[in-house]
Amino acid sequence: MTKRVHNFNPGPAILPLEVLQHAQAEMLDYKGTGMSVMEISHRSKEFESIVTDAQTDLRDLLKIPANYKILFLQGGASLHFAMIPMNFRPAGTSADYIVTGTWSKKAFKESLKLGIAKAAANMEAENFNHLPAQSDLKLDPKAAYLHFTSNETIHGVEYFTEPVPAAGVPLICDTSSDFVSRPIDVSKYAMLYAGVQKNAGPAGVVVCIIREDMLGKVPANLPNLLDYKALAEENSMLNTPPCWSIYIVGLVLKWLKEIGGLEGIAKRNQTKAGLVYQTIDESGGFYKGHAKSDRSLMNVTFRLPTEQLEDTFASEAKKRDMIGLKGHRSVGGMRASLYNALPIEAVEELVKFMKEFQQKNG
Amino acid sequence: MTKRVHNFNPGPAILPLEVLQHAQAEMLDYKGTGMSVMEISHRSKEFESIVTDAQTDLRDLLKIPANYKILFLQGGASLHFAMIPMNFRPAGTSADYIVTGTWSKKAFKESLKLGIAKAAANMEAENFNHLPAQSDLKLDPKAAYLHFTSNETIHGVEYFTEPVPAAGVPLICDTSSDFVSRPIDVSKYAMLYAGVQKNAGPAGVVVCIIREDMLGKVPANLPNLLDYKALAEENSMLNTPPCWSIYIVGLVLKWLKEIGGLEGIAKRNQTKAGLVYQTIDESGGFYKGHAKSDRSLMNVTFRLPTEQLEDTFASEAKKRDMIGLKGHRSVGGMRASLYNALPIEAVEELVKFMKEFQQKNG
Repeated sequence: MTKRVHNFNPGPAILPLEVLQHAQAEMLDYKGTGMSVMEISHRSKEFESIVTDAQTDLRDLLKIPANYKILFLQGGASLHFAMIPMNFRPAGTSADYIVTGTWSKKAFKESLKLGIAKAAANMEAENFNHLPAQSDLKLDPKAAYLHFTSNETIHGVEYFTEPVPAAGVPLICDTSSDFVSRPIDVSKYAMLYAGVQKNAGPAGVVVCIIREDMLGKVPANLPNLLDYKALAEENSMLNTPPCWSIYIVGLVLKWLKEIGGLEGIAKRNQTKAGLVYQTIDESGGFYKGHAKSDRSLMNVTFRLPTEQLEDTFASEAKKRDMIGLKGHRSVGGMRASLYNALPIEAVEELVKFMKEFQQKNG
Repeated sequence: MTKRVHNFNPGPAILPLEVLQHAQAEMLDYKGTGMSVMEISHRSKEFESIVTDAQTDLRDLLKIPANYKILFLQGGASLHFAMIPMNFRPAGTSADYIVTGTWSKKAFKESLKLGIAKAAANMEAENFNHLPAQSDLKLDPKAAYLHFTSNETIHGVEYFTEPVPAAGVPLICDTSSDFVSRPIDVSKYAMLYAGVQKNAGPAGVVVCIIREDMLGKVPANLPNLLDYKALAEENSMLNTPPCWSIYIVGLVLKWLKEIGGLEGIAKRNQTKAGLVYQTIDESGGFYKGHAKSDRSLMNVTFRLPTEQLEDTFASEAKKRDMIGLKGHRSVGGMRASLYNALPIEAVEELVKFMKEFQQKNG
């Protein structure tokens, strides 16, 4: 019997067991080719189908309008922190960033290296424990774009309603850690991008969904691999793409469709997060959530009365095969990441354990 | 019984069967963690070991001196075509490029986008059918570096003795398609880089071997993911690396050590290429090699008397489970890629087929 644990890792994170089993079964012979997916040409009809199917399934799931390109690129979201201003902020213009946690702060910082950027809001003084209100945003009406991070993996705050940019300003979103976790209205965005290693696949590929008119803004003479227009023209195949990671993303998207699409997974994700937040809220202060509002459905961050108790919590959880519950090294505390592939049973185990732990140590 | 073919693909390419079986066996549970390699944290001790082991094995195999960093990065060699001038060519200085085929030409072109570059030689007028002599190189004594491509995958020419740069000029090499195919003297190089999807793994990771003093040249304020110094300081973990691809590279390196290291594989590669070249040379002109000299041990490129015969050759080979023998779409003809993982038996099948095909059609 193969051992499997309750995997609360923040990313790379749990994948659907069915997807792993599928990939395992065809590891030596992908669909009768006599080769692994890792050994077939990225220009072969088999790999072309993998890319086309993944694009079609993603378009179905997210209801992506026809005037958006879907790209499978590399470098993690972090490379795109630099590519976005390179591609979409003409020389001399400024871009707006909503700074709501570690990841949007990094995106802002990378952007500042390359030109002018302004913080439309910066929640650091409040320890990133809630999101800014729309009315508190200082929006530049001439901004090249407005950038935000839909879910902050480390601080555990999440946007459920998009910020509204100034009239005519394109909205760009890093959705790495809540990608395909619920339905969204893609038409509100000029670009969405996501490192897939939380909700939709293994590390090594970034999905970029870009409205076609944006590609007209790309300046001439960017390096090929940093040029969204060149990458889109070659359908992500300007050079050899990260084939295996794209293949696994494709399997995850098929799995998502089979279990009820984004409506289905959204309901499941609400139930899962609801169980943990309820346990926190009913603990009489033993468990203390980090977020005051805008609580993430993906990453539930909380503290215990002492750091020592937090260590004990993590190590006792591990003994019960619940792993990945320590908070990010930069903030400490606990974090339960409840991505799409995490079964509800794992969360039930967690809240049972949380209650027992409080009883013993509260 | 699982079907496996004779895989002559130019990249992504054949992987050792043992490596695939190993990865398959631990797909659901990596070393008792209860998780796939794709599901463990890149900061976990398990993944740390994967990276450290791969670095140690590569250092052993290539006898890499201690003052070189080994990085596992993304974007394919093509992204590094841009990163190298960004990092190692100070503003206003020029870099030298030896243009010997499609890949070095691309590297040169990307470099020109970003600043000043000169062709120390350009073999295009001779259809890239041999390499320039050392004495024919026009070397700039003040060049920021001299760049060359050790094996041209499309044209089938390979350097077996490194070009010698002007005194004090760092030598940088794209070794994507002959990486770890034979011993080399790393101390001659300031930097070696290789997309691993030919000889050492699946697509999605680029191995960079960089002499430490080079990192002192990196200018301030490059985007993090384009900054070799920042990437080296974080041991390739500035953000989530392409974990699965690194894992497979690690397995391939272990396999290489087990079958006799680079000395062992070099002998095997010589034998394999020798068989095909002998068949070409003894065909009385029926098979015509593209390269006049400097013939690649990795990619044997040749033509048949007519394009129609070439099509027949490819389709009949495919019927005998030999795949990937068509030349690159940009040059036509045939190409047999004979990377490390291709067993000698596959090459014996190929030359047997070549002889029979000539008898029938010659």
